[in-house]
Amino acid sequence: MDLHKLTRELHVKNSTKIVMYVADGLGGLPQKAGGFTELETARTPNLDALAKIGVLGGSIPVVPGISPGSGPGHLGLFGYDPLQYVIGRGALEATGIGFALQEGDVAIRANFCTLDSSGKISDRRAGRIPTEESAPLAIKLRSVKIPGIEIFVEPVKEHRFVIILRGTGLEGSVHDTDPQVTGVSPLDPVASDPGSKQTADVAKEFIRQARELLAGEKKANGLTLRGFSGKPKLPSYEEVYGLKAAAIAVYPMYKGLARLVGMDIIGNAQTLDQQMTVLEENWSTYDFFFIHFKYTDSTGEDGNFDAKVKRTEEFDAAVPRITALGPDVLIVTGDHSTPSMLASHSWHPVPTLLSAKFCRTDACEKFGESECLRGGLGQFEAKHLMTLALANAGRLGKYGA
Amino acid sequence: MDLHKLTRELHVKNSTKIVMYVADGLGGLPQKAGGFTELETARTPNLDALAKIGVLGGSIPVVPGISPGSGPGHLGLFGYDPLQYVIGRGALEATGIGFALQEGDVAIRANFCTLDSSGKISDRRAGRIPTEESAPLAIKLRSVKIPGIEIFVEPVKEHRFVIILRGTGLEGSVHDTDPQVTGVSPLDPVASDPGSKQTADVAKEFIRQARELLAGEKKANGLTLRGFSGKPKLPSYEEVYGLKAAAIAVYPMYKGLARLVGMDIIGNAQTLDQQMTVLEENWSTYDFFFIHFKYTDSTGEDGNFDAKVKRTEEFDAAVPRITALGPDVLIVTGDHSTPSMLASHSWHPVPTLLSAKFCRTDACEKFGESECLRGGLGQFEAKHLMTLALANAGRLGKYGA
Repeated sequence: MDLHKLTRELHVKNSTKIVMYVADGLGGLPQKAGGFTELETARTPNLDALAKIGVLGGSIPVVPGISPGSGPGHLGLFGYDPLQYVIGRGALEATGIGFALQEGDVAIRANFCTLDSSGKISDRRAGRIPTEESAPLAIKLRSVKIPGIEIFVEPVKEHRFVIILRGTGLEGSVHDTDPQVTGVSPLDPVASDPGSKQTADVAKEFIRQARELLAGEKKANGLTLRGFSGKPKLPSYEEVYGLKAAAIAVYPMYKGLARLVGMDIIGNAQTLDQQMTVLEENWSTYDFFFIHFKYTDSTGEDGNFDAKVKRTEEFDAAVPRITALGPDVLIVTGDHSTPSMLASHSWHPVPTLLSAKFCRTDACEKFGESECLRGGLGQFEAKHLMTLALANAGRLGKYGA
Repeated sequence: MDLHKLTRELHVKNSTKIVMYVADGLGGLPQKAGGFTELETARTPNLDALAKIGVLGGSIPVVPGISPGSGPGHLGLFGYDPLQYVIGRGALEATGIGFALQEGDVAIRANFCTLDSSGKISDRRAGRIPTEESAPLAIKLRSVKIPGIEIFVEPVKEHRFVIILRGTGLEGSVHDTDPQVTGVSPLDPVASDPGSKQTADVAKEFIRQARELLAGEKKANGLTLRGFSGKPKLPSYEEVYGLKAAAIAVYPMYKGLARLVGMDIIGNAQTLDQQMTVLEENWSTYDFFFIHFKYTDSTGEDGNFDAKVKRTEEFDAAVPRITALGPDVLIVTGDHSTPSMLASHSWHPVPTLLSAKFCRTDACEKFGESECLRGGLGQFEAKHLMTLALANAGRLGKYGA
């Protein structure tokens, strides 16, 4: 079922405003069975007030039991079936730093890592090297030269950087070189189809030269490559929903993902407060705002229950600046759960709240995992959320006569 | 959406144990509106204890409103989309008695029936003739001879037997001859496509000769044929989930179905106690155990509310022998509902319980139809249960970057 076939046909334009306020990795787990989750532990008076007047439910990021990465997680929220649309990590990262991928480019997400004297990985993230140290190293790698190939190396954040290969005959089906564990050497880049053989060869030569350039480094003396991928093809928000959409995010990945579906990336906020200021300043210019808050995920990934609780409260505290603008539809959700008990993304449904004039509110009184179980949205695949947003905004006509 | 495309790609191996404990036809209906179902009436302290620590929901066998047979019911539980994979009853029964179907064979499930003097069916199951009487009759039918066709006749249980036709040019699209009611004659075998014409002719001749051989019988003087089918093609549990799986079942059909998805059929238990002994003895050898309990279905089919309650209590009483083994994931469910008020399979969602360390428990206190409505699994198509089992066992990697 192609939901965009419906929304393309049925969407109408009006002056309503839709806000999708996303706490990355929002869903969680209690520290012991029967206890409260991070969200249920957090003091969230503003979200609870919205829960009373809105309608709640559980968003299944992909299908039951599947834990998504950030790409599929956000595609689902944006209404793009995450099983139909697949974006490589490299393409996502490149787009996220504002790099304009061209048709035929191959983008690669690269990580600095620490290699021991025998060439084995001792730290997969180079001790989470700070950006101030890693960025100059990424730039140093621009001196890698391979005949016939134009190479771009772009710093991202901490241990992450991006390589873009431009040339003829490059395809993106190359396996990751990150072995995902320490104590072993990085893998060689291996093509998974014949058309990608040249890409694998170029990557191998890149790694060889890069290792020479990084030889003197203590932390970042090696690198791994992941997510080889070409430019993805995604229809835009304007095309499928008729929405002029803006993204207000701090981290490059979420900016990149939003740009891929045709959102404008607005402002250069570094804090949630600054994000809200950007929202206020651009309120009259857009129909749809995607606001991304990262730290509920990163604290969850760190396995830090208390920190996630605190970040959730911070997320809650910014809500009044959104509601003060009077959005016609306000959605609060996450792209997936990141329970601090698991210290990773998970498959559990994500607490979701939709507030709008005609949302048919339910009996829920608070915003939390247990409460969402008796919510009026039930449990639903995330990809249906945008259609619900449009409907609640009066932006969808009737299907069929 | 092919769930196995995801599980093939994402599954990882570890040392966890998953148990799927299936009460056939588990779901039921109250004797009058507002009353308790069979499961709710039964005293089930062990399942209730699991309900407190686990997560509950309602499993929709196929899609809402569809009452499945045993084949689709179990395929769904096993994670094989029952609308995509179709197994004929004949193929299922043949596999269930250990008959190794070959490509090109046509298997037919046959029932002895009682015909009156005018050739009309007076009992569709030949008075549920005991196996001791029916097996020699099935063997007697091996003297049916049809030129160019190799014929196997295998006794099953009570009124049931299997016929396998082997030869060239045989296909399995032939309508059942069981009219499903008494007081009328068995139907003629009719091909539903041109390629199956020869099969229908052979079947007709088989029936003619069989009627002659059975002419002197009081109970089993006739036969009906159902589920003409070739050998089904199903990928194995090892292939799609990376699981070394075992089935512990009493009845041939469930052994057969499990074998079709690559499970080993272990033990030769005749009682639930013996099944648990087989489980204990093989605990270290397998990753996944399917344990099948038949009598919640057969008592439901008999329309015997009290007997189903009693069988449900028997099913509950065996739970401690499973939990004592410490499975990482324990699922309790049924392949469909068989309400004794309907005396047949039904479409109602099946009470389902999943207990695992990170299952995100809900507020449910007891295992029953009403309680499952407020469970954390919501209502879901049965085919998603295996993905949830794998996720809860830590056996699924992240989807996408």
